[in-house]
Amino acid sequence: MARIATIETGLYRIPLPVTLSDSTHGEIAAFEQITCRVRDADGAEGVGYTYTVGRNGGAVADILQREMPGLIESREADDTEAIWHHVWWALHYGGRGGPTVLALSALDIALWDLKARRANLPLFRLLGGFDARVPCYAGGIDLDLSVEALLKQTDGNLAKGFRAIKMKVGRPDLKSDVARVQAMRKHLGDGFPLMADANMKWTVEEAIRATRAFQPFDLTWLEEPIIPDDVAGHARIMQAGGVPIAAGENLRSLWEFKNYITAGAVSYPEPDVTNCGGVSAFMKIARLAEAFNLPVTSHGAHDITVHLLAACPNRSYLEAHGFGLDKYIEHPLVLEQGMALAPARPGHGISFDWKGLAKLSP
Amino acid sequence: MARIATIETGLYRIPLPVTLSDSTHGEIAAFEQITCRVRDADGAEGVGYTYTVGRNGGAVADILQREMPGLIESREADDTEAIWHHVWWALHYGGRGGPTVLALSALDIALWDLKARRANLPLFRLLGGFDARVPCYAGGIDLDLSVEALLKQTDGNLAKGFRAIKMKVGRPDLKSDVARVQAMRKHLGDGFPLMADANMKWTVEEAIRATRAFQPFDLTWLEEPIIPDDVAGHARIMQAGGVPIAAGENLRSLWEFKNYITAGAVSYPEPDVTNCGGVSAFMKIARLAEAFNLPVTSHGAHDITVHLLAACPNRSYLEAHGFGLDKYIEHPLVLEQGMALAPARPGHGISFDWKGLAKLSP
Repeated sequence: MARIATIETGLYRIPLPVTLSDSTHGEIAAFEQITCRVRDADGAEGVGYTYTVGRNGGAVADILQREMPGLIESREADDTEAIWHHVWWALHYGGRGGPTVLALSALDIALWDLKARRANLPLFRLLGGFDARVPCYAGGIDLDLSVEALLKQTDGNLAKGFRAIKMKVGRPDLKSDVARVQAMRKHLGDGFPLMADANMKWTVEEAIRATRAFQPFDLTWLEEPIIPDDVAGHARIMQAGGVPIAAGENLRSLWEFKNYITAGAVSYPEPDVTNCGGVSAFMKIARLAEAFNLPVTSHGAHDITVHLLAACPNRSYLEAHGFGLDKYIEHPLVLEQGMALAPARPGHGISFDWKGLAKLSP
Repeated sequence: MARIATIETGLYRIPLPVTLSDSTHGEIAAFEQITCRVRDADGAEGVGYTYTVGRNGGAVADILQREMPGLIESREADDTEAIWHHVWWALHYGGRGGPTVLALSALDIALWDLKARRANLPLFRLLGGFDARVPCYAGGIDLDLSVEALLKQTDGNLAKGFRAIKMKVGRPDLKSDVARVQAMRKHLGDGFPLMADANMKWTVEEAIRATRAFQPFDLTWLEEPIIPDDVAGHARIMQAGGVPIAAGENLRSLWEFKNYITAGAVSYPEPDVTNCGGVSAFMKIARLAEAFNLPVTSHGAHDITVHLLAACPNRSYLEAHGFGLDKYIEHPLVLEQGMALAPARPGHGISFDWKGLAKLSP
């Protein structure tokens, strides 16, 4: 146990190996990575980060640099609940979502990393250790690929060891979506876990129509059929569509997940540790899902999230989706027969190549 | 009609005449004011602003400076719906709340000001003109005042022409809250509109207990009894407490208001034009309230909001609460027999003292 001495913020623009596309965000050429390094009075360090799909990173960094030091310096670093609530309320006006929660998430991840490193435990064991092996899927951002390119990308993912795959849907015509899902099902064979992600593209009725069209192809889940603001719409799609629904990458608090879960609006809650409020909030969401007998999946930041799902008896698939960050991490995620392995190193075990990142400052 | 040429951002730290306090934000010594000036290709200008109670203003300004110009420059300035949705979705990841929505609100206000000025209409007439005279209340931030000081402040507000007053509640003991509400009711007399604001201080059960204790004193409404995230809790307080509930200053979208309204969780929706998404979103929320046979009140930014409520047949009280900004405005709000007057000048009619503000840059 020691007090927080310093907090250091980094903002980087990580170019993507290939320009990505989905049905809502359009073309994405770079992600923004915002890092948060917390050092305590003994010189121990914890590292957290958050990211964006290309915008608002400056605002996240501004909050970490301008607001956070005065709020947390000299507090006990282990008191993650006290710090989380202090920051949440201090930044509440102009907070409760958006860049403020992304900044808090990065801070909270850093504090949990620090806590686990000081305890000389891998994060997943500090959080409760259920199973270091976590089923994992490859999340493709592939809406604009031809069917041929989609299947080729799929073969690449199979070769990397993935045993579950997610594809994008939400093209201008449903017929094209159905043909692509059908082609993927045929290519992967019956029983192979296949998910589809619509990135909020549809109306409720369009989503119901799509889920019915997808039924023959046995999707594990359909993700984000509509805007995240419409809880009742999600519940209607669940009831009428006959396909499990995943949602959560655009929800920013425990309470937003609670609204979905109690309304019967989601089958697979899907928090992102870098934008739902950090490790503290992710674990509460996962435990809430457990109480409601729901599996929990994830979005983004697989290197950290593998630890969180490894501490959850109700863990479903981990999303693996590295947006070019792997190049700047010493030990990228290890896959074994489709399972991601939570590393045994203390903390979350990510070591960034800070010199390499420094070249990507905007 | 003309295209957007430039957008100029200002960030100012406005010291408060006296340090304010409420049950959640603690002591507030300064507000941040973030301005947005949009000029079109003809040289016409519109001005918008948002504010914070002291934090996150840097992040709001960063979004306006870094993200907004590339998103909106050369778009038709009058196409407020197209611009709003373009910005909402471009900034959605890292948006959907927080500083992102405050920035969008400031932009949207500027565009509506520009549109009204080009049309040579006061904003309230452009929006539909119902009645330029809007009932108005004085919003005191007075939780820590003694009863004597509270009544003295009240006399000052009566002398300024206010015919409705809101006070803070949420002190450590309910008994003290009840004594203060009772003293205010006695001082103001039966039938004088009196509201109370708890600033999210209580649990649901504490709030129900408080509403029952307040019943003899005929509150017009009780505001923000609990955290804004608990819609079901608000509905329970409405049902069990017997006092109308106002809420909304911490909701950041049309959809959040829709959730409250359809759940029977609010009697007086209370959007803030500077943080709910601007004029475009405020008017949709007001019209939604009208459809549900609910009055609409407001939070903050009375100089702009007087126009919006003046265009609403279901308008309730305008909150007047200037946080020291009046010093930097050419024509502060005019009150007549308790009614605020929407000015007849084109646009919202606010002219800032830019030179005075410039001295308040952080």
